[in-house]
Amino acid sequence: MKPIPGLVKHNQRIAMRHGGGGRAMRTLIEEVFMRGADDIPVDGVGLSAMDDGAAIRIGDQYLIVTTDSHVIHPLFFPGGDIGMLSIAGTVNDLSMMGATQLLGLTCGVILEEGLERDILERVQASMQATCREVGVPILTGDTKVMGKGEIDSLVINTTGVALTKRIVRDNGLQVGDRIIVTGTVGDHGLAVMALRNKLELEGDLRSDVAPLFDLVQKVLAAGGDSVVAMKDPTRGGVASALHEMAGKAGVGILISEQAVPVSEAARAAGELLGIDPLHVANEGKALIGVRPEAADRVLAALKAHPLGRNAAIIGTAIAEPKGKLVLDTGFGKRLLAEPEGEPLPRIC
Amino acid sequence: MKPIPGLVKHNQRIAMRHGGGGRAMRTLIEEVFMRGADDIPVDGVGLSAMDDGAAIRIGDQYLIVTTDSHVIHPLFFPGGDIGMLSIAGTVNDLSMMGATQLLGLTCGVILEEGLERDILERVQASMQATCREVGVPILTGDTKVMGKGEIDSLVINTTGVALTKRIVRDNGLQVGDRIIVTGTVGDHGLAVMALRNKLELEGDLRSDVAPLFDLVQKVLAAGGDSVVAMKDPTRGGVASALHEMAGKAGVGILISEQAVPVSEAARAAGELLGIDPLHVANEGKALIGVRPEAADRVLAALKAHPLGRNAAIIGTAIAEPKGKLVLDTGFGKRLLAEPEGEPLPRIC
Repeated sequence: MKPIPGLVKHNQRIAMRHGGGGRAMRTLIEEVFMRGADDIPVDGVGLSAMDDGAAIRIGDQYLIVTTDSHVIHPLFFPGGDIGMLSIAGTVNDLSMMGATQLLGLTCGVILEEGLERDILERVQASMQATCREVGVPILTGDTKVMGKGEIDSLVINTTGVALTKRIVRDNGLQVGDRIIVTGTVGDHGLAVMALRNKLELEGDLRSDVAPLFDLVQKVLAAGGDSVVAMKDPTRGGVASALHEMAGKAGVGILISEQAVPVSEAARAAGELLGIDPLHVANEGKALIGVRPEAADRVLAALKAHPLGRNAAIIGTAIAEPKGKLVLDTGFGKRLLAEPEGEPLPRIC
Repeated sequence: MKPIPGLVKHNQRIAMRHGGGGRAMRTLIEEVFMRGADDIPVDGVGLSAMDDGAAIRIGDQYLIVTTDSHVIHPLFFPGGDIGMLSIAGTVNDLSMMGATQLLGLTCGVILEEGLERDILERVQASMQATCREVGVPILTGDTKVMGKGEIDSLVINTTGVALTKRIVRDNGLQVGDRIIVTGTVGDHGLAVMALRNKLELEGDLRSDVAPLFDLVQKVLAAGGDSVVAMKDPTRGGVASALHEMAGKAGVGILISEQAVPVSEAARAAGELLGIDPLHVANEGKALIGVRPEAADRVLAALKAHPLGRNAAIIGTAIAEPKGKLVLDTGFGKRLLAEPEGEPLPRIC
């Protein structure tokens, strides 16, 4: 192997944590994928912004582009499946960038030799149903097959394109802005963990996987320019997403733990598994930063929507400590560390 | 498992041929991925066109979108690597749709736990170098990790977006149109096969992987509206791509075997392996259908470009037999069957 000039030789190997959505993944991306990221300038939001997607100016609007590969295991889980997830996940990333017109999605599947065709048909039907719900077409696709044992069953890449006149970034918080979460946190990650650990739980613990485009349109209509930051808390959960938002904006975030909505079932599963619902992936939730004067208006718009019934104002951007989360437990305040990564691999 | 209404139950399983770019793959796509493809209409070229990509009207131009997952094994091969391939492959699909302004690419990687980080860095450097060569930025990305043994080393999805005023389809052939190939055929597939089979060959058999955007701009400048069809002959090779072009246009295609450029090294490898260079993947070649009066002009433009030096007019669209290829061997004519798929899995 010829060494690449300027690169320090690493004997490091890729570990599961490098895909976990937390600090380990961010470091890998910064050290490897950001090399040369700004060589070819983008008129808009490019790779080095490390936002939920990119935005390129075209005339008087922006083309938003996002991509996600879906490797969830198992393929079918309470509340959803990889097909629904692959559509909702990419629709949500487009929505978080402020998309107001969805143009379409691409679908690249990689299949394992020997996969039952019935499974593929169920996954495709689920993708199609979610597309119809949102009103977004699959534009084009690609099909690859790898040998038996070369890939575990099937993975799906979905890339999305959309338009907007006004991009919403994940770095727009100012001191005093309110942080809203659109519903209960931790349901997706804990539902998949409970399934993988064969936990017997009371109550109905289901993934929250859902496309948020319609909900976000209501938020943008109610909040307008006062909606200053959005991010969907997937891998690494709310804790990871808020760290990213705080770090990029150069503010701290004070969270009221008691204000964070958590379903009874997720709370029970989290206690059994010893995992904080703030640290696990959501697939149908958004974190929204709004100017304080618009917070109640946006919250009311959310609560009027079926996917926002449990929305709550959970925190405020503060001046210090910059880039950190402060958790007010009701009994005192403590720093909430940035997660190294998602506790469970292949959660999305 | 709940049966999906209207679906006949299949006990079929996915086979390697379903990813081979030939008839088996086309049938799988038609039977599974086309279900509901037209439910949400696209103003332009959508999924059901099964072209190299999609095109959506935005104002007075079209947004072109294409996606490809790259699963080639091994990752590094004579003439290129998966990084270069992932950029060139998607740039070429955009180019085949008539792109005149590349906006950017997305990059979704799936890594195997335990992958050496050096390998990832080499692949990223190669992607970046190819992007710089073309002048196209990577806009956004996604990083997933699967467990050791759950995926073979690494795969890359690249999705591309570009603009054009005039789409070029793969279905535009009319009787009398000339078919041009931009250079020698079979080099990529045979180079990878020779490596996998550890063939000892004389001469320099290398993959032709290269981004064709610049070459295609010269073609469009020289041929204008007389350039009526383009397709890059990847999996399944020239034989598969021409079958698709003939079938969609409702014409036959007569190919002069002696006119098809094949390098000495590819010919030798093809003979040793018993494989026709017309049947294997190219990654830096295009098939171009042009009105007869423009053929010489387009050919001259190609030959003036470093990637088109070996371009040749290899055939003509004919009235019958529709959807078929007729090979004129110099000693007589015979039908060239549509390949079932690429002879070698994981060729791209």
